[in-house]
Amino acid sequence: MPKPEDRRAQSRTAPDSDRWQTSLTAIEPNKIQIRGYPLDEMMGRLGFAEAVYLLLMGELPTPTIGRMLNAVLVSSIDHGVTPPSTLAARNVATSGAPLKDCVAAGILAFGPHHGGDIESCMLFLDRGLTLVRAGKSMPQAAEAIVAECVEQQEVPPGFGHRYHTRDPRAARLFQMALELEIEGEHVRLIRATERALGAHKEQFGRQLPVNVDGAIAAICGDLGFAYELGNAIFLISRLPGLIAHAHEERSRQSPMRQIDPKDQAYDGSGVRRLPEGRK
Amino acid sequence: MPKPEDRRAQSRTAPDSDRWQTSLTAIEPNKIQIRGYPLDEMMGRLGFAEAVYLLLMGELPTPTIGRMLNAVLVSSIDHGVTPPSTLAARNVATSGAPLKDCVAAGILAFGPHHGGDIESCMLFLDRGLTLVRAGKSMPQAAEAIVAECVEQQEVPPGFGHRYHTRDPRAARLFQMALELEIEGEHVRLIRATERALGAHKEQFGRQLPVNVDGAIAAICGDLGFAYELGNAIFLISRLPGLIAHAHEERSRQSPMRQIDPKDQAYDGSGVRRLPEGRK
Amino acid sequence: MPKPEDRRAQSRTAPDSDRWQTSLTAIEPNKIQIRGYPLDEMMGRLGFAEAVYLLLMGELPTPTIGRMLNAVLVSSIDHGVTPPSTLAARNVATSGAPLKDCVAAGILAFGPHHGGDIESCMLFLDRGLTLVRAGKSMPQAAEAIVAECVEQQEVPPGFGHRYHTRDPRAARLFQMALELEIEGEHVRLIRATERALGAHKEQFGRQLPVNVDGAIAAICGDLGFAYELGNAIFLISRLPGLIAHAHEERSRQSPMRQIDPKDQAYDGSGVRRLPEGRK
Amino acid sequence: MPKPEDRRAQSRTAPDSDRWQTSLTAIEPNKIQIRGYPLDEMMGRLGFAEAVYLLLMGELPTPTIGRMLNAVLVSSIDHGVTPPSTLAARNVATSGAPLKDCVAAGILAFGPHHGGDIESCMLFLDRGLTLVRAGKSMPQAAEAIVAECVEQQEVPPGFGHRYHTRDPRAARLFQMALELEIEGEHVRLIRATERALGAHKEQFGRQLPVNVDGAIAAICGDLGFAYELGNAIFLISRLPGLIAHAHEERSRQSPMRQIDPKDQAYDGSGVRRLPEGRK
Repeated sequence: MPKPEDRRAQSRTAPDSDRWQTSLTAIEPNKIQIRGYPLDEMMGRLGFAEAVYLLLMGELPTPTIGRMLNAVLVSSIDHGVTPPSTLAARNVATSGAPLKDCVAAGILAFGPHHGGDIESCMLFLDRGLTLVRAGKSMPQAAEAIVAECVEQQEVPPGFGHRYHTRDPRAARLFQMALELEIEGEHVRLIRATERALGAHKEQFGRQLPVNVDGAIAAICGDLGFAYELGNAIFLISRLPGLIAHAHEERSRQSPMRQIDPKDQAYDGSGVRRLPEGRK
Repeated sequence: MPKPEDRRAQSRTAPDSDRWQTSLTAIEPNKIQIRGYPLDEMMGRLGFAEAVYLLLMGELPTPTIGRMLNAVLVSSIDHGVTPPSTLAARNVATSGAPLKDCVAAGILAFGPHHGGDIESCMLFLDRGLTLVRAGKSMPQAAEAIVAECVEQQEVPPGFGHRYHTRDPRAARLFQMALELEIEGEHVRLIRATERALGAHKEQFGRQLPVNVDGAIAAICGDLGFAYELGNAIFLISRLPGLIAHAHEERSRQSPMRQIDPKDQAYDGSGVRRLPEGRK
Repeated sequence: MPKPEDRRAQSRTAPDSDRWQTSLTAIEPNKIQIRGYPLDEMMGRLGFAEAVYLLLMGELPTPTIGRMLNAVLVSSIDHGVTPPSTLAARNVATSGAPLKDCVAAGILAFGPHHGGDIESCMLFLDRGLTLVRAGKSMPQAAEAIVAECVEQQEVPPGFGHRYHTRDPRAARLFQMALELEIEGEHVRLIRATERALGAHKEQFGRQLPVNVDGAIAAICGDLGFAYELGNAIFLISRLPGLIAHAHEERSRQSPMRQIDPKDQAYDGSGVRRLPEGRK
Repeated sequence: MPKPEDRRAQSRTAPDSDRWQTSLTAIEPNKIQIRGYPLDEMMGRLGFAEAVYLLLMGELPTPTIGRMLNAVLVSSIDHGVTPPSTLAARNVATSGAPLKDCVAAGILAFGPHHGGDIESCMLFLDRGLTLVRAGKSMPQAAEAIVAECVEQQEVPPGFGHRYHTRDPRAARLFQMALELEIEGEHVRLIRATERALGAHKEQFGRQLPVNVDGAIAAICGDLGFAYELGNAIFLISRLPGLIAHAHEERSRQSPMRQIDPKDQAYDGSGVRRLPEGRK
């Protein structure tokens, strides 16, 4: 029987049912389990992208989904010096702030106009898929959600790009989704929507092809990601880009300089090809 | 010959030599090259970890380095609810702030006592390697840098852990470095340092085995990463953990709750094993 | 006539009409003007709250508005350890991160459920004032916007409080607005709304008196602040609180501790009164 | 005697001596005390700057210190578009991110080269004052700490400015410190150091007059602020500037623009004078 002084110590440790719960990671001395899998067993046997999927979704990805997710994460790893997130990171770097501060500032610039499009596009596609479930065909659903955008004079999220008239990353993602046979209704709807937009070219004043955010949104939708995690995938993907720019700013440039994003030139490696052996 | 009105437009676009330079990513309409490699060619052929290495280091990793880096990134993907970064992210989440804000706050908590150890440990090991280059043996160098810590009564960075007496992640990283034959002088010195610390157990009041930060520091050192990028590797690794906790907080808990990190229980999947087929 | 090499330098400095414009602060060597006023003349003659008003609104406040704004800024300067922003700042501090990182993390926790209420409440009141302009009386307008909240089963922004059944800060702000004769339609509507909510007490399960956010929202509305600047006023007000908590965490507590917000006690000065002489 | 089920509830509420302590703010239902003073009594009787002093330092400032602190806070309220913190805030704003995210990013840019000088300068002056306490005269101490900087070829923190050859804010702060009779040894030493630097003009290649950071550092030192709080004073002062720029970016400019800090012009109010009546 516990002595009185023990009782108190005991009662401060509430039974599990009183505690708040988490289902992500179990920690015991010398043991770490991610979603039930021993972390040290995962190391060397799961790639990072697969471990990301496990942690966020709760189950191991199939090898096919693993390949698709790797491609999605590679697709947005960097986009040069002009995105607001990169410029925020570089401007913080120029003050001599530590790398993590530059990166955090960059992440804060993933606003509605940059990086936030994936979640918006997933919601946009789901409006269309609701119509499909109510009996409309894909082209009809696409036409309906495009008509809304035309009416509100708004470019739909996931379409058009400041620089690219045909986003090479979107094209490659769709090609892979087709080859890997994971194309689902989100991808089919976004392609139908692209065609519907083509018919309204004059109303928007330009072609609006699917951009990389749109392609990621459609694929994340087909893979079953929550809206919020759609944006998170972009965040994971772009983080190395923010790091690389902040590090380059700190190591190549003078502190406190005035950064004009339009006054920049590339002096890195010339174009080269991946060795044939590479997968 | 250009007409006068052309001249001005032209001169606003300075020649390349006047511009500030970046060597990371070249962007042209419909073309994106990362360190010279077309991004759409990288997709599907390089894993995310390999693309991270390429972007940060400027060259493709060998397949062996790619495997090692995947294991390093998996090793720190999450460590439950108690790290300050996770708690900062969860406390921001409870206010209803967007996911990116939770994540940015979490990153800001990678301070000297948490996450910042990798850079410090790389510097610590380099002090020892300077002695090796001056003629000392590994054990002598290890003893010398440990003696400094004993004198200053400071636990060296990369050793000891709040929870683990033997960090399973460090053990697995060293095993892989050995198997993949990428063990170099940093790994050899950190193992020698661990032994030297064992002989000073009574001065520190406890065993101080290498922890995961120490193992990452030694391996990043052997892979040739800059100090600052050592910490960045941890940042990339832990980002999905911050996302998963912020997302769980937002989806499972009530807003504005008071989070006691000690009052928590795990209710996720029981222990399970990776399928044999997995690499 | 300029020599050729001069021409280029010249043309890189575009005429003012080509440049992007700012109307806040003019900087010349040894001269700084805030909204036209020499900064060194402002020092010693304007209080900080008055300078804040000038910078944000473009004109000097009357002495009365200056007094009101000082009271608004004092009202939210701190609220103990339990708000998510304070806990985010303290959790970042426990990692040893610099003060500015703690503060930035705290600011990120000003989400919809905490700190963001001022903007929402200003918008809520403006819905009512639109009805007033369309001919409804204040009580009718208040009843209409409350009815909407009852229907959607949502507590209106700016009402009710986790701790306080009668928020002493709101009471004092309204008293001052009355005494200083700056009470306008926003304050009158929010008081009418508080009465209308009283009649719906049973639907919400509790009294919902105006809280400090509601009082600030109404006063900022009457002072003519933009919605977005309503939240900014809270941000300026609470910043010293975030700083004080981060600093106390760093100077009084051990690093890497697990912070339970419910397990805390106050050990500061006992209750005391302001000296009579004070204004 | 409590029944068994009561005992547990009781013991979960630990006695005060077991709890962690804070001395800043006491919260009870309908009562808020800042450092012992009822918050609603402070409102209307203390200015914001005085409340800041009370919260950070634990005691009411004298009216004289209150006036000095107001001037210090006004001195750094904004410095146009070119500081890295302002540019970080504007670049985040251009993505459509909320105001608080812009502001948090701006704060992260208060690095060693910008905003961080106050703490460094306070430490620098304290090195000199240690010499004074050891028997050196002010000019000798100033000469000694300047000699160190000459030897290390480093501009001492708090001296020199990118734009201003004579910082009007520093001049005004020193004038006020003299008039208000709160000049102490930190201010006397920094003036002596400025003279000592004048004698080494050729070694630094230019005059290095005290800048606003140096003046704030000296005054904060004389007022007894901790080093870390020296930087915090700058943070509080500049926050409205970050808000004003983020708000202007959001309301006057198009989203996703490329911000060249050198390509900007001021189009605000012309120079004007404070009305005579103003204090």
